[in-house]
Amino acid sequence: MTSSMPVLAIDLGATKILAAVVADNGTLLAEKQVRMHPKGGQHAGKQITALAVEMLAVAGPVQSIGVCVPGIYRKATGTVWAPNITGWNDYPLLSEIRAFSGNRLIVIDSDRTCSILGEQWLGAAAGCSDAIFVAVGTGIGAGILCGGNIVDGAHGSAGAIGWMALERPYSGDFAASGCFESRASGAGIAAEAKRMIKKGENYAGELSKIDADLLTASHVLEAYDSGDRIAIAVVRQAVAFWGMAVANLVSLFNPQVIVFGGGVFGPAQALLPQIMHEARKWAQPVAINQVRLAASALGSNAVVYGAARLAMLHIKNSGL
Amino acid sequence: MTSSMPVLAIDLGATKILAAVVADNGTLLAEKQVRMHPKGGQHAGKQITALAVEMLAVAGPVQSIGVCVPGIYRKATGTVWAPNITGWNDYPLLSEIRAFSGNRLIVIDSDRTCSILGEQWLGAAAGCSDAIFVAVGTGIGAGILCGGNIVDGAHGSAGAIGWMALERPYSGDFAASGCFESRASGAGIAAEAKRMIKKGENYAGELSKIDADLLTASHVLEAYDSGDRIAIAVVRQAVAFWGMAVANLVSLFNPQVIVFGGGVFGPAQALLPQIMHEARKWAQPVAINQVRLAASALGSNAVVYGAARLAMLHIKNSGL
Repeated sequence: MTSSMPVLAIDLGATKILAAVVADNGTLLAEKQVRMHPKGGQHAGKQITALAVEMLAVAGPVQSIGVCVPGIYRKATGTVWAPNITGWNDYPLLSEIRAFSGNRLIVIDSDRTCSILGEQWLGAAAGCSDAIFVAVGTGIGAGILCGGNIVDGAHGSAGAIGWMALERPYSGDFAASGCFESRASGAGIAAEAKRMIKKGENYAGELSKIDADLLTASHVLEAYDSGDRIAIAVVRQAVAFWGMAVANLVSLFNPQVIVFGGGVFGPAQALLPQIMHEARKWAQPVAINQVRLAASALGSNAVVYGAARLAMLHIKNSGL
Repeated sequence: MTSSMPVLAIDLGATKILAAVVADNGTLLAEKQVRMHPKGGQHAGKQITALAVEMLAVAGPVQSIGVCVPGIYRKATGTVWAPNITGWNDYPLLSEIRAFSGNRLIVIDSDRTCSILGEQWLGAAAGCSDAIFVAVGTGIGAGILCGGNIVDGAHGSAGAIGWMALERPYSGDFAASGCFESRASGAGIAAEAKRMIKKGENYAGELSKIDADLLTASHVLEAYDSGDRIAIAVVRQAVAFWGMAVANLVSLFNPQVIVFGGGVFGPAQALLPQIMHEARKWAQPVAINQVRLAASALGSNAVVYGAARLAMLHIKNSGL
């Protein structure tokens, strides 16, 4: 890095916009967050512009702007697909940011990619060239670095590990969001628990006291800690799937570290040794001894740090 | 590429050593192949040196040497693990090549990586930045390019897709070479056929006429073409696993093309549409529409062309 100039990082979530000015040592020099306009579309776009312009005014000189989006960025067109922002099926984010950014460098990538960049810079994957962030929340996705390079894929959708095929035969359950995600995401865990409660006629445990519509993976993980038998069965199944997924990532990418984050890890962090135990059965036997599993060190901040890192790497790659 | 100087490519197989001088347009200016010494070890090393020195003498100026190995190259130590060459558990190939190569650039990688580099240069993946070579022979492995970069992993073993976990529960069958490989490699297909023949008491089809010790995947694929019922069951199962593996590669890497090669593809090329049909059920639904499946265009030559390409890219990356 030849410059010590700060960068502007913009973290777009499904419901919030965070802009931060970040120094090259990771210090947050300024930050501000607003709730995203519920109508999304250009309403959200105008909020991004206003917030970014405000931050640039306080920031002083900024050479590069890094943006993370909750979906897929299409480099070829400069547009974004973000399923949880209304009207962002193919939103022209690059041109919108270009309009206010002068001749600053702009770089945009997915939240999962930014998560692993943040963890690699300042968190649980510090110093690693080959590292994967597995985000388990409502859904499941992964951000992947190989030999220091971001794995984006030909059209920006690499890391869609929720679609990993792990169990035969094919079931209609998998159609909406994939085999792995249907079994072991936050939503998948809640759904499995509801199925088992419905079947378990004599069950009167903790989970039976929660309204089925409100039951979440957090409830299941709490009930697991207190020895509830349905929670134990559901969590064991999730651990089996997480272990297979880890094994496949290890055999395919030979990484140094796999970082678990998202809403479920969180509470499921204590399960990492069990997940490793499962993974060891399946994975390439040399590569599994070359990897460690870790919980996210930065939590929800991984993304904004990653967007800042993305901007800094872009300066470096541009030779400025 | 600033230089039009040819390169020396060395292709090490389990039983042969091929050295070739390759021009930057892909023309083979000279080539020679010898059978590898069955005792492997330094016997093989001396053969490599002798053959390479002979080729360099006829080649004229050569700036770079690319070597492919049938196993894993450990960059950190310059050593090779090649399970099918006797005594090559941690063989110091880099220092051996350095000893005769003067100040030429040297680059070494696996046969699977060289296969995709060859196909990307002159074959079925020409012009693609995101491409995967799936080699199905006795075993299964993959060479992977993401955004134009080779995916080697932290310790050189990336692409060990034979270890992919695709079927629960875990079975002891998977311990030796992985779930996917045990079900859908050449050896796996032959083993499945033998199992079914043994179980199928009233079976008197084609495959029952072949000595079990001599039965191979080629026999099964031939019998499939003539409608043998056990062959059909075995091939359908292999197609199901190949489809799941394609789906997982598509969801994880979002590639433009997956090239099938190795001894089994070959005869199984006609099954690519069925494999795509299976993959479509499981894969991330946008990414599966952005990929094509192709048979290897270069066959067993993919590797030596890939080793040449590796050498050329190394010149480029070294800024010479």
